[in-house]
Amino acid sequence: MSKKYEKFVEHQQKATDVNKAIALLSWDQETHLPKGAAEVRGRQIATLSGISYEMSIDESFVKNLRELQSEPGLDARQKRNVEDALHSVTRGLKLNKAFIEQHSRLASKAFGKWIEARKADDFSIYAPVLKEIVALKRQQAEMIGYEDHPYDALMEEFEPGARTKDLKVLFADVRDQLVDFVKEIDEKQQVGDEWLYKSYDKDEQWAYTIDILKQIGYSFDHGRQDISAHPFTVDFGSTDVRVTTRLNEEDVQEALFGTLHEGGHALYEQGLRIAEYGLPTGAAISLGIHESQSRLYENNLGRSLAFWEANYADLQKVFPDNLGGVNVLDFYKSINLVKPSLIRTNADELTYHFHILIRFELEQGLIGGEIEVEDIPKEWNRLYKEYLGIDVPNNAEGCLQDVHWAHGAFGYFPTYSLGSFYAAQFFRQAEVDVPNLKTEIAKGNNAPLLTWLRENIHDHGRLYSAEELCQKITGEPLNFKYFMEYARDKYAHIYDLQSMEGLIA
Amino acid sequence: MSKKYEKFVEHQQKATDVNKAIALLSWDQETHLPKGAAEVRGRQIATLSGISYEMSIDESFVKNLRELQSEPGLDARQKRNVEDALHSVTRGLKLNKAFIEQHSRLASKAFGKWIEARKADDFSIYAPVLKEIVALKRQQAEMIGYEDHPYDALMEEFEPGARTKDLKVLFADVRDQLVDFVKEIDEKQQVGDEWLYKSYDKDEQWAYTIDILKQIGYSFDHGRQDISAHPFTVDFGSTDVRVTTRLNEEDVQEALFGTLHEGGHALYEQGLRIAEYGLPTGAAISLGIHESQSRLYENNLGRSLAFWEANYADLQKVFPDNLGGVNVLDFYKSINLVKPSLIRTNADELTYHFHILIRFELEQGLIGGEIEVEDIPKEWNRLYKEYLGIDVPNNAEGCLQDVHWAHGAFGYFPTYSLGSFYAAQFFRQAEVDVPNLKTEIAKGNNAPLLTWLRENIHDHGRLYSAEELCQKITGEPLNFKYFMEYARDKYAHIYDLQSMEGLIA
Repeated sequence: MSKKYEKFVEHQQKATDVNKAIALLSWDQETHLPKGAAEVRGRQIATLSGISYEMSIDESFVKNLRELQSEPGLDARQKRNVEDALHSVTRGLKLNKAFIEQHSRLASKAFGKWIEARKADDFSIYAPVLKEIVALKRQQAEMIGYEDHPYDALMEEFEPGARTKDLKVLFADVRDQLVDFVKEIDEKQQVGDEWLYKSYDKDEQWAYTIDILKQIGYSFDHGRQDISAHPFTVDFGSTDVRVTTRLNEEDVQEALFGTLHEGGHALYEQGLRIAEYGLPTGAAISLGIHESQSRLYENNLGRSLAFWEANYADLQKVFPDNLGGVNVLDFYKSINLVKPSLIRTNADELTYHFHILIRFELEQGLIGGEIEVEDIPKEWNRLYKEYLGIDVPNNAEGCLQDVHWAHGAFGYFPTYSLGSFYAAQFFRQAEVDVPNLKTEIAKGNNAPLLTWLRENIHDHGRLYSAEELCQKITGEPLNFKYFMEYARDKYAHIYDLQSMEGLIA
Repeated sequence: MSKKYEKFVEHQQKATDVNKAIALLSWDQETHLPKGAAEVRGRQIATLSGISYEMSIDESFVKNLRELQSEPGLDARQKRNVEDALHSVTRGLKLNKAFIEQHSRLASKAFGKWIEARKADDFSIYAPVLKEIVALKRQQAEMIGYEDHPYDALMEEFEPGARTKDLKVLFADVRDQLVDFVKEIDEKQQVGDEWLYKSYDKDEQWAYTIDILKQIGYSFDHGRQDISAHPFTVDFGSTDVRVTTRLNEEDVQEALFGTLHEGGHALYEQGLRIAEYGLPTGAAISLGIHESQSRLYENNLGRSLAFWEANYADLQKVFPDNLGGVNVLDFYKSINLVKPSLIRTNADELTYHFHILIRFELEQGLIGGEIEVEDIPKEWNRLYKEYLGIDVPNNAEGCLQDVHWAHGAFGYFPTYSLGSFYAAQFFRQAEVDVPNLKTEIAKGNNAPLLTWLRENIHDHGRLYSAEELCQKITGEPLNFKYFMEYARDKYAHIYDLQSMEGLIA
């Protein structure tokens, strides 16, 4: 390996060590932190963020990296690492340490205000700091620069290459096709689901989620599961990828599908090359591709009849009082019930995207300057009525329901929808490439699916962009039609009983 | 506050943020780390150690600190902070980053070899890396410098001001007075203790240790308890001080006295001023003083009859099958049984110090060059025979029992004995200053003790050296006679039944 490249790797990996320490400080904050320790923890994270930023734009590191562009003898992965790192450096150099620290401090303050505002159902507690954040994000967009829309500069952090104008086209499809389809479903007779909300013992749920993780191929030698208020996945290198879950005694779906969702994220991280720790080719491509893995496990696999063909008898054994009298078809239908609702994180697979659409429109408007922070509640409620037909009863369950803006994460929400759409397109391709995929799943064998994902997605790290990867795997760019095909196929069966029998593997 | 002083505080606190991140990486390593993640975690700790070291000797920080020596208008605590920080800087400047990283890497390697060697009961697996470590520690002593003995330079890290020649005098007292006293006890009839080794339910033990922590004044708003293989205390600032415990179904003492021990450490940390986070006056003085707090809670309080007068009925209620038929006097005697044994961490209050004496002699010899690593097993076994009258059956239970040398922690062991001796002297003084101390303890009220410790020890941070503090509180330097008085008083009663009745509060 060239000396210059070695030097690059060494610095990049040390900077990653700092970032992983930040990740641990944050994981611990969500899972273990005593309540009196929030303030000190906040300053520890801010300090390490400053150090991490300084390392990312270190002068001799940047100089070496620039020289590496013309270094002979690098292989494809090495070239890609240099290119991707330069892209990050270029972006980083447009900011400065004062900005990074201000962002961190403001996010910390906003988080507290958001908690308070949501508890009191009072948007005015949150509005002033949110105004500061929006101003800071607009400033950030100007510092970074953009061709078309300032929102592009912010999305780039989460979904490199994503552009507002393309997403507008995509979400127009979502609106046009999904709204009508949900209306069609709405006219059918609703399926039953009362058994999902009986009393489910938490210890039993916990044990069952561990079994599910093992079954999908999650390695407990390289990870662990803990409890947190909001489920998430975090990695400290691919040898230590942790998931968290939430157990709700009154709704077994949170544990089941939360675990499958985080499990999907975790399998991606565990599938990255540890030898490329800290390098772009040892890291995930984008949040959209990351979310494709979690959605694929949560929905395409986890809400499929084949999966429950394999697993339902065991679930019934664990909860005989609740599920003993419910057959697998009724269970399958109940976990796929479609119904417009208030809260994004509780939404079904279809109406979920209206929640994202609404946030996408609001964020664009806020960053573009067409919407003011004061107008959020009114706009929010108007859009919920328009797209979901729902009257929002209060701000706590309305525009205060998500934490993202408090973190300064503008441009993050669209990646959730992108994830679902990529998942549909990838899963369809996996079914083409692995002809017995569903049959194996119905036998409880999820290994062929993981093997396919490892080879086609995980192992590449950031060798390809999201767009390139999608093209390489499926032969075309992201196409919303695959999600609609998946949805039509699935829900036509669920809401049209006569054809269900044929579905069973 | 002066600008210069503010600048000092800011940098010092940021460096502390990095050190606390290292502490969290280590805490997590002991309590939560998946088994496949050790190597990557090792490199993360090494990188942050390097950053921490660089911050500690940062040029402009050191320049500012030197200028602060002649800054007017600093109060006593501020002056002490400048002085103490300069002392650390002076020490730090004698080392270098390459040394720090080599130390970290070697310790990581040695830890693995130690585990392996202990498992295989084969000292030769460990010897080569231990030779490297001893060489490195000797090099470190030369880099730092010393007046009298190279071991002094190493002890300074753990017990500022401690000197080999003083400890030799102290341990000569230990040998002369304690050996005879233990022989005296050995001739008496041994007390019974079989009830301590019956089957104790782990969940019940866990709940009981939580109650004990609350009762001694430990704040769960500023800490938590977890399980680990070896109990320890760690702090991330005084708002987050965590303890761990170990539950042994066959020996209830591990949980009881482990919790009291770690609880004592934790109360010290929780009693430091958070406003002085990262500053010497917001930090513990030395390991010896730290250990005085843990030993005081474990032994002077936790193995006292007064404490169990207040708590034994509850313990009996939790474990009626094991303790229902054992009265409080017999229980008290059993937790104070004196008997020479193989393993340091299981030793009683008296023979414990022979274990330390042996390690002190070996460490001095290794660092001084009179003992070679190859000779350790032979020397170890000879000394165990001489001081404890025990034949060591194998190296796993002999010279491989402790992890300290693998971590490079030479000069650490003596602080354990210093802790016990300080504890006896402090506790005696507390009894003088708070006349109703024991009566309150016997009523289950441990608040007066904590108040005394907070005022006289915790709140000062490093305002005084260990020696100054001892002088200030008790009117004289550390004096072994107080430990011997405590021991004679306690064990004369335990091994001489007729006078026990008078002891009950």
